[in-house]
Amino acid sequence: MSFLHQQLRRAPTSILTPCRVCRSRVTRGFKSSAVALDKTTETGSRPRVVFSGIQPTGIPHLGNLLGALLNWVKLQRDAAPEDKLIYSIVGWHALTLPQDPKALSAARSDMLAVLLAVGLDPERSIIFHQDENLHHAELAWILNCLTPMGKLKRMTTWKSRLAASRNARDDSEVDESLLNAGLFTYPVLQAADILAYRATHVPVGEDQQQHIELCRDLAEIFNRTFKAKRPLFPLPQHVITTSCRVLSLKDPSSKMSKSSPDLNSRILLTDTPAQVRSKIRGAVTDSQMGITYDPVERPGAANLLNILSACTGEEVTIVAKRYADKGHGQLKADVAEAVEELIKGPRAEFERLRREKAFLEAVAKEGAEKARKLSEVTIREVRTRIGLV
Amino acid sequence: MSFLHQQLRRAPTSILTPCRVCRSRVTRGFKSSAVALDKTTETGSRPRVVFSGIQPTGIPHLGNLLGALLNWVKLQRDAAPEDKLIYSIVGWHALTLPQDPKALSAARSDMLAVLLAVGLDPERSIIFHQDENLHHAELAWILNCLTPMGKLKRMTTWKSRLAASRNARDDSEVDESLLNAGLFTYPVLQAADILAYRATHVPVGEDQQQHIELCRDLAEIFNRTFKAKRPLFPLPQHVITTSCRVLSLKDPSSKMSKSSPDLNSRILLTDTPAQVRSKIRGAVTDSQMGITYDPVERPGAANLLNILSACTGEEVTIVAKRYADKGHGQLKADVAEAVEELIKGPRAEFERLRREKAFLEAVAKEGAEKARKLSEVTIREVRTRIGLV
Repeated sequence: MSFLHQQLRRAPTSILTPCRVCRSRVTRGFKSSAVALDKTTETGSRPRVVFSGIQPTGIPHLGNLLGALLNWVKLQRDAAPEDKLIYSIVGWHALTLPQDPKALSAARSDMLAVLLAVGLDPERSIIFHQDENLHHAELAWILNCLTPMGKLKRMTTWKSRLAASRNARDDSEVDESLLNAGLFTYPVLQAADILAYRATHVPVGEDQQQHIELCRDLAEIFNRTFKAKRPLFPLPQHVITTSCRVLSLKDPSSKMSKSSPDLNSRILLTDTPAQVRSKIRGAVTDSQMGITYDPVERPGAANLLNILSACTGEEVTIVAKRYADKGHGQLKADVAEAVEELIKGPRAEFERLRREKAFLEAVAKEGAEKARKLSEVTIREVRTRIGLV
Repeated sequence: MSFLHQQLRRAPTSILTPCRVCRSRVTRGFKSSAVALDKTTETGSRPRVVFSGIQPTGIPHLGNLLGALLNWVKLQRDAAPEDKLIYSIVGWHALTLPQDPKALSAARSDMLAVLLAVGLDPERSIIFHQDENLHHAELAWILNCLTPMGKLKRMTTWKSRLAASRNARDDSEVDESLLNAGLFTYPVLQAADILAYRATHVPVGEDQQQHIELCRDLAEIFNRTFKAKRPLFPLPQHVITTSCRVLSLKDPSSKMSKSSPDLNSRILLTDTPAQVRSKIRGAVTDSQMGITYDPVERPGAANLLNILSACTGEEVTIVAKRYADKGHGQLKADVAEAVEELIKGPRAEFERLRREKAFLEAVAKEGAEKARKLSEVTIREVRTRIGLV
């Protein structure tokens, strides 16, 4: 199976410049990407500032790669020269759940190696550890003081934590009390991550939509409360990617997830070709003859078709037609091949880079310096407007 | 009326070295102080680290002076050479309530002038703006992730905000939702203020006792969660001062407060001698003949006796005996004189210093550098222990 370099579909307001992949410009890591943006909005005529973050909580799986990282690479490749791209490894967010310090430290370094391995270029994008730019924490505090408690209580991420905690125990009052304040306020830190750079576009998963709305609310509250000639913060747009939702290979009713106890439910960047084949061969499908794309009735097959579509850049319905008369075995073999083809380059690069500690530290240092230089401009203006100068 | 330089009463575990005032070492600002510590505890044999903070929300009144600032000066004067003294102007805390940015900025600068004017010596004590040491915000985030929601909900400061908000409106649910998240989590920021310097002693008002207990809890949780050869944080001791509770001149059932609408209820550092006399002459007392010290039945007179006692350094019961046969008029005249004697030096120094913007900025800059240097040691160890390195 070969990879197609496709002209990306673009809405008139897309943040992407015309696709240059077809003109043979191939990024270092992934050779191709078919993730298209289905919702982007321009924020006036100023250069776009793209911000996104990923938690350093282990080797990324196929869902992370197709859903987020591949898209980051595509954004980098297709951005206009004046656009800024800022990608952060958000270690402080990881603290909202218990972490083993040694594992966290290793994952933090590994995640930087991953970002470089998939093709992010530290010369073009600002790549840095959130915890090395303290402006995020400063701005988070300031925004905390503008965030009504009610908005945080209405976050579905919080409500689902609450529900999970309540189900796990008997006395609901005690449970809520035991959840930590970081878990409650992290959407404010996330808003600070974004607003510190006055980001205009935030490519994150659909489950983050409510957080981006909170971020917009906080930007508006700040602009309204601390007026000046111009509003300080643009209202960032949520950039939702298509074809990004990779489901568990063992339970296609839920997302592919790091936290599932079944290791065969996900494919990791570090999986060997044999592991990739074995996991996809073991993916849950159904016993119907032939292949059709039906995410509701046939979620397992649909998931495989989505993966294949994301790997090749073809429309999933076109892919599905090609398999109409074929069996699940053939589909699985082709998906395994496509996935292996997708990850083999980045995997090798990651294995090489993760041992280059001094290099990674140098990249992190330079990235943090660039990030701080940029957020310094924002935070100075914030301090002036609120009166802490 | 003359001021007495008294040997300060000390508990065996006092953090004070023997009083040197009697040996004619007079601090630049207040000529004398009679604030004694009634609860201090040693934390092993390591040098003591004293931390306290004050919000930059206007010119201090007599309650701030006698209750906090005077005590800070005394701690500075009486500290052992190896003790560290760290005093912070905590602007971030001020943001938990709405502030006028221009007024906040002026108050922030003025508060530094006040601290110098009352006699804090930037060569001996570290005096700095909280918002110029971002480690506080960083540590606050980290501690947030260790703080159970229940502990914050049980803070009486939060509960009284909630009650006040509920009383002010009809629908209690809406009200709680409108309070900001900074108001809810500021005890965690306060813990970070203290723990960033691994402070051992925290001289703050009695109403802050629960916050210091939270701080100790968080120190313990951190030490337990992120074990190493030694626990990272000492458990800070709350240092409560005696004779610090100055009541409203107009309503001696409540504390002297910046927020009271009646300007005559408080004496400000910047009040003229005539204003001091007039406000004290107008203080609410009672119509009984003679003076006795009875805080419950005769709170107005007791407040004046307490102020006089705090100004002179005499035991309040001894002061009261001297006035047993005298009238309220005589007491008020003497209190006015004592207060004027107390504030006239700092007032003049404050009026001079507040105009020295360049000097104040230089002092702030140096203070912040010293503070950061100290907290850097703590925060590096924190980062290592939690795994964000």
